[in-house]
Amino acid sequence: MPAFRQITIVGLGLIGGSVGMAARRHRLASRVVGLSRSAATAKRAKARGAVDLGTTDARAAVRDADVVILAGPVDAIVPSAKRLAKWMKPGAVLTDVGSTKMDIVAALERSLPRGIHFIGSHPIAGSERRGIEAASATLFDGATCVVTPTSRTPAAALRGATRLWRGMGMRVERMRPIVHDCLLGFTSHLPHVIAFCMAADAPRSPIPMPRSWLEMTRIAKSDPELWDDILLSNRDAVVTALDRLIGTLRAFRGALGRGSRASVLAVLRRAKKVRDAIRD
Amino acid sequence: MPAFRQITIVGLGLIGGSVGMAARRHRLASRVVGLSRSAATAKRAKARGAVDLGTTDARAAVRDADVVILAGPVDAIVPSAKRLAKWMKPGAVLTDVGSTKMDIVAALERSLPRGIHFIGSHPIAGSERRGIEAASATLFDGATCVVTPTSRTPAAALRGATRLWRGMGMRVERMRPIVHDCLLGFTSHLPHVIAFCMAADAPRSPIPMPRSWLEMTRIAKSDPELWDDILLSNRDAVVTALDRLIGTLRAFRGALGRGSRASVLAVLRRAKKVRDAIRD
Repeated sequence: MPAFRQITIVGLGLIGGSVGMAARRHRLASRVVGLSRSAATAKRAKARGAVDLGTTDARAAVRDADVVILAGPVDAIVPSAKRLAKWMKPGAVLTDVGSTKMDIVAALERSLPRGIHFIGSHPIAGSERRGIEAASATLFDGATCVVTPTSRTPAAALRGATRLWRGMGMRVERMRPIVHDCLLGFTSHLPHVIAFCMAADAPRSPIPMPRSWLEMTRIAKSDPELWDDILLSNRDAVVTALDRLIGTLRAFRGALGRGSRASVLAVLRRAKKVRDAIRD
Repeated sequence: MPAFRQITIVGLGLIGGSVGMAARRHRLASRVVGLSRSAATAKRAKARGAVDLGTTDARAAVRDADVVILAGPVDAIVPSAKRLAKWMKPGAVLTDVGSTKMDIVAALERSLPRGIHFIGSHPIAGSERRGIEAASATLFDGATCVVTPTSRTPAAALRGATRLWRGMGMRVERMRPIVHDCLLGFTSHLPHVIAFCMAADAPRSPIPMPRSWLEMTRIAKSDPELWDDILLSNRDAVVTALDRLIGTLRAFRGALGRGSRASVLAVLRRAKKVRDAIRD
């Protein structure tokens, strides 16, 4: 007996498609429904096994859902939630997959109809590729999903979201939206900023770029429209992380410029110690 | 008939060991000799198939060599060259594998005995791992080797080095030492500085680090003693590259802090365009 009768995924790109595939693979629901603005995408999602039913009819898609997962870009999540919530059945759980949580959670906690239980989620996995063709049933294997309850979050929403993500094999971690955004600012958004800036600055080289450069800039191939939303919606945390890194780089530059071997070596040794202790 | 009678490799770590394995695999010399300060390393190099003969006797190792390749750390190359050159036979080619070229080439062009033909080389490949156990016969497959002739370089040295590296399947690219150092400052040394600084700044996180962070900091596991030499010996170019990146990061931080979507998006789009055009 599956944990849910119907799960509906709104937005069938890389993440939405992969959520659908993982839900179906884990037999998490009797029916996985996918909603897309594009009939072609809805059809491809069905063909790729991401959903049992793909549709462009928003009302029909969410009416019978026990769980609705908003899997569109960060700035589409709030308007999309407001539009769909009025058609959802009382007691249904509404969640999302957005890479930032403070703005989304703050906006939706105050504006949804009674009986719709919202909780913010962020399954942490991704790829520089996008779209339903890049979706994969194993994208979330071994991944962590952060859920971000607040004092206003209904217990039913927290239970539902936890059951949902665990049911796909993810580890669920709870934290406040602000903690999530600060952490992700340092660990995910900052690396993207660095990669984008390094790639934008790339010199024309007669020799092939070394593996170190290629690896460090791989994520600069990510979708610019997706990432400007993420970075702007978490700008305070990203600016904080960026200021800290710029400070570290300037201090290092000073030590290197002075030829201070002891200071250079101290940073390199601390870095290696930290990095060696983190499992790949 | 192999291209060389004897090749001698000085320093049997990751690079020296891999050069030996590649030379033997491509039957580039009748005999590949390895010189190490450690008898245990010389023995392991022989056992791993990196050399035909491993020794700690410097004079015996280089006396009959047609080519001597200095494969120790950057700051060991010049003293090692001076010590060994006096035992080398006239007409022999002396080269190295150092990651920076200006200082090494300038120092050695003026101080070697007549009849010893020096040319700087840099086979571009590597790993965050080190030592003979990490060496691999395929490390240089598809790689580029930069050789750095100057107006003082004997034609025989350029011919010998070109035959050597091409014989291991590498593409050979010629450029002046200063051009090499500037390019590598941007494409290899700068990424290492960023990775070291990011790892040194890593926040303690209750959630696993995302793939983007792990990938961007992998090279922070590199050997600090090796990298402080490389960075200090190329400090002008690294400082230039670092200043430029810090400038780009500060401009981006300003745009993000002001919430200027157009400026943020412009950097992201330029970065993606540049990165998409570079083959992994």
